[in-house]
Amino acid sequence: MQKFLSFMLIVFLPLTIIGNLMHFNEILLFGLASLTIIPLAGIMGRATESIAIHSGPRIGGLLNATFGNAVELIIAFLALRQGLTQVVQASITGSIIGNLLLVAGLSFLVGGVKYPIQKFNPSIARTNTSMMMLGVVVALVIPAIFTLQNDTIANQLSLVVAVVTLALYLLGLFFSLVTHRHVFHFTEDMEEEAEWTLRKASIILALSTLAVAYVSETLVHTIEAVSHQLGWSEVFIGVIIVAIIGNAAEHSSAVLMAWKNRMDLALEIAVGSSLQVAMFVAPVLVFVGWFFGNPLPLVFTWPELIAMTLSVLLISFLCNDGESNWLEGAMAIGAYIIVGFGFYFL
Amino acid sequence: MQKFLSFMLIVFLPLTIIGNLMHFNEILLFGLASLTIIPLAGIMGRATESIAIHSGPRIGGLLNATFGNAVELIIAFLALRQGLTQVVQASITGSIIGNLLLVAGLSFLVGGVKYPIQKFNPSIARTNTSMMMLGVVVALVIPAIFTLQNDTIANQLSLVVAVVTLALYLLGLFFSLVTHRHVFHFTEDMEEEAEWTLRKASIILALSTLAVAYVSETLVHTIEAVSHQLGWSEVFIGVIIVAIIGNAAEHSSAVLMAWKNRMDLALEIAVGSSLQVAMFVAPVLVFVGWFFGNPLPLVFTWPELIAMTLSVLLISFLCNDGESNWLEGAMAIGAYIIVGFGFYFL
Amino acid sequence: MQKFLSFMLIVFLPLTIIGNLMHFNEILLFGLASLTIIPLAGIMGRATESIAIHSGPRIGGLLNATFGNAVELIIAFLALRQGLTQVVQASITGSIIGNLLLVAGLSFLVGGVKYPIQKFNPSIARTNTSMMMLGVVVALVIPAIFTLQNDTIANQLSLVVAVVTLALYLLGLFFSLVTHRHVFHFTEDMEEEAEWTLRKASIILALSTLAVAYVSETLVHTIEAVSHQLGWSEVFIGVIIVAIIGNAAEHSSAVLMAWKNRMDLALEIAVGSSLQVAMFVAPVLVFVGWFFGNPLPLVFTWPELIAMTLSVLLISFLCNDGESNWLEGAMAIGAYIIVGFGFYFL
Repeated sequence: MQKFLSFMLIVFLPLTIIGNLMHFNEILLFGLASLTIIPLAGIMGRATESIAIHSGPRIGGLLNATFGNAVELIIAFLALRQGLTQVVQASITGSIIGNLLLVAGLSFLVGGVKYPIQKFNPSIARTNTSMMMLGVVVALVIPAIFTLQNDTIANQLSLVVAVVTLALYLLGLFFSLVTHRHVFHFTEDMEEEAEWTLRKASIILALSTLAVAYVSETLVHTIEAVSHQLGWSEVFIGVIIVAIIGNAAEHSSAVLMAWKNRMDLALEIAVGSSLQVAMFVAPVLVFVGWFFGNPLPLVFTWPELIAMTLSVLLISFLCNDGESNWLEGAMAIGAYIIVGFGFYFL
Repeated sequence: MQKFLSFMLIVFLPLTIIGNLMHFNEILLFGLASLTIIPLAGIMGRATESIAIHSGPRIGGLLNATFGNAVELIIAFLALRQGLTQVVQASITGSIIGNLLLVAGLSFLVGGVKYPIQKFNPSIARTNTSMMMLGVVVALVIPAIFTLQNDTIANQLSLVVAVVTLALYLLGLFFSLVTHRHVFHFTEDMEEEAEWTLRKASIILALSTLAVAYVSETLVHTIEAVSHQLGWSEVFIGVIIVAIIGNAAEHSSAVLMAWKNRMDLALEIAVGSSLQVAMFVAPVLVFVGWFFGNPLPLVFTWPELIAMTLSVLLISFLCNDGESNWLEGAMAIGAYIIVGFGFYFL
Repeated sequence: MQKFLSFMLIVFLPLTIIGNLMHFNEILLFGLASLTIIPLAGIMGRATESIAIHSGPRIGGLLNATFGNAVELIIAFLALRQGLTQVVQASITGSIIGNLLLVAGLSFLVGGVKYPIQKFNPSIARTNTSMMMLGVVVALVIPAIFTLQNDTIANQLSLVVAVVTLALYLLGLFFSLVTHRHVFHFTEDMEEEAEWTLRKASIILALSTLAVAYVSETLVHTIEAVSHQLGWSEVFIGVIIVAIIGNAAEHSSAVLMAWKNRMDLALEIAVGSSLQVAMFVAPVLVFVGWFFGNPLPLVFTWPELIAMTLSVLLISFLCNDGESNWLEGAMAIGAYIIVGFGFYFL
């Protein structure tokens, strides 16, 4: 698996650079950039993991919780700088529903084919689903409902929401890493050896971050042209395509964990990533946008809000009992297919 | 009970035929047809049950799961052929909320009067409520939100939704009849004797299906006139009146099971029927409509969507803990009364 | 605490009376009235409690369940008589979300700082959250969705909803005080001594009710002027300011109970008060309004409905497992802050 990803990187990164220099067709460039980001995201994840293990559980947990979605953050930041607010919102939406429905769904399905019933810690699952109820549903629905057609108010309320959700995200880390560390006992299992030394991992992380930023620039620049040429809306590209690319590495890790019957870890990747995007990446983007005078209002469209709300409710129903099976996985994937086609036809 | 139903049939079926021939007043005809369908639905259910017992648990489960709502399917099919798309959608809505709120509510109430607390298998209940979240809420809300005022897209997305929900319905049967049969252990209790021989049950089923089709034709033809003469909207007739008629037999069986403290069976009838309508009857109608060039878009009105979504949420809250009491029954019935008056005033 | 409240009363009640006579500035009067209502509400609560203890558990429970929100009822009644329908609806909304998010949130947070995990009876919590699903969400969403822009129908459907919810509220009392009294066993703990004799408590209750009515009159009269002068909308004042004032006494009792690890009582105050407002105060106001020819339609605005629905869902998620911790409290408070700013910017 890791060899295959390295191979992908060695092939597609140079091709993307050449393509940029030689002004390849935009659809080709978009495809090359996508195929480069998948292994890069995987390598960044592994480097962050190694640094986290060297840093001990608390700092490590903090690192994982903040750099875990660095790729989404970089893509969104570049899109925001370009003024592609809709694409940023779409990629936030896509990352949330993709992690909740597709990643969790595939994990439940693949794990469920091997084990009739898989158990996970219901306390953690409930804390996470409550957090999603707050960080995804309340935090994103309220601005859309309360600030109809008033941009100034939308931006002010978005700042309030960003401050509250980021504060709660940090309190959530304090909860899981400090005051209620014993509840999250599955972290004990994780005392694995680091893949790389701290020094090596840091260098790899720095280099791959640079590469991701470069390739993401290509991706963002070509979205508009791809949208025109293929007749796909920018929202569909943001919600479905970019989100799948940005989360491909997580998808494979979560499914692997489920296959090994380590459902707490699989869910931590799926649900934890959604939370991170909603309660860390989104607020940071609001602050960044406000700082650079290119504000990002957290005012999503109705289809986006409905898709996110239903995803949270469905996953909450599925996780509530601390058990999963293959049918629950099929349900989540079915919901993702329906929502995906919805965005395609939009 | 069964004698009373046979008596109803012997009285009202001939009267309906005579009424048709002699062109009775439409309201009278509608009433006669309704009173004929109630015992016919009961007899069809019993015949299906007998055939199911003769066929063994798997084929039998499949038969029950697909022919259990044959009356709704026939009425809806005839209405669809007449181009009464709104009536079809209304009768789907009515069947779902009627089964969820009225049938489950009466079961909880009647059983709860006898037993302070009634227990049922929470795993089955949760699987079913998750399925409803997908098959009722996601599958029906997404098309309404994503295809505003575009009929072509509405029909395409409806086809996608129909394929996905039907596939999940079949996977759900595979789950409950094959891979996780042990979870659904209450089916063991059901090894009862068949009421009729396979041959007799088949003949009864065929005859009663013909009779239902004939009487439903009368029912569907008179809806418009009844709507005009009584000042009731077609939606109200579809959601409340037709749904109560079509499900009367199920209502009485579920309540009887609750009275015998067999809550798993009572819920299977109530929640299972809702699922069947949403994930089997509705998709089949979409395919049939598409085949006959009279497409049925799964685009429900807001009141219908809200009523279905709230019903699913309320029943999920009530079933979540694997216990019921009379107050929960009263709540569900209260919700049905509010929703019913809502549709009346619409 | 009680000395401090008595002191507040002795200072602010005379000041409010003087202010009324001398026509103080409206904002000052509004402030004085608010500061007078807080201790008055506390004293009314204590007098009701004493009478309840003297009356035995059943009658006492009934008294608490009907007079517990007398202050809200009086304020709303006076506002309704003035024709301030929007303020009435806003104060109902505010009382529901304030009790659910702020009171429960503070209880979880304050109790959770002392105890890592606090347990409460999940059966009671689930009965209450199901009731809220019915009494808040179904009962208030259906009229808004089904009666768009038709006042006559809105008033008729509101009457139906009022009858159904009040009946269910009374059935709920019958359930908790009679048929399922054993489930609500925490009431046994409450066999405390009454603070005052029946006679003294009755006199105190009568006098403080008169005083509340007088001061509320001032409060209601000054709302419009405060709204104009401070630039706050009447809805914001109703939802946030009036609700906090009217519930301040309950807030402090609930938090105190949580601090003593008596979470069942804390939740009974928070969730029970919400239920009382939705299913007793609101229906009574509908009847009163109808009787006095000043009908109160239960047609709330979208922001109000969304805020109430999300509050119910969030609290249901948090209470579902019968356990709470400080992070859950922080989530509820965070949601309250977001919703509060939403109403501020509205």
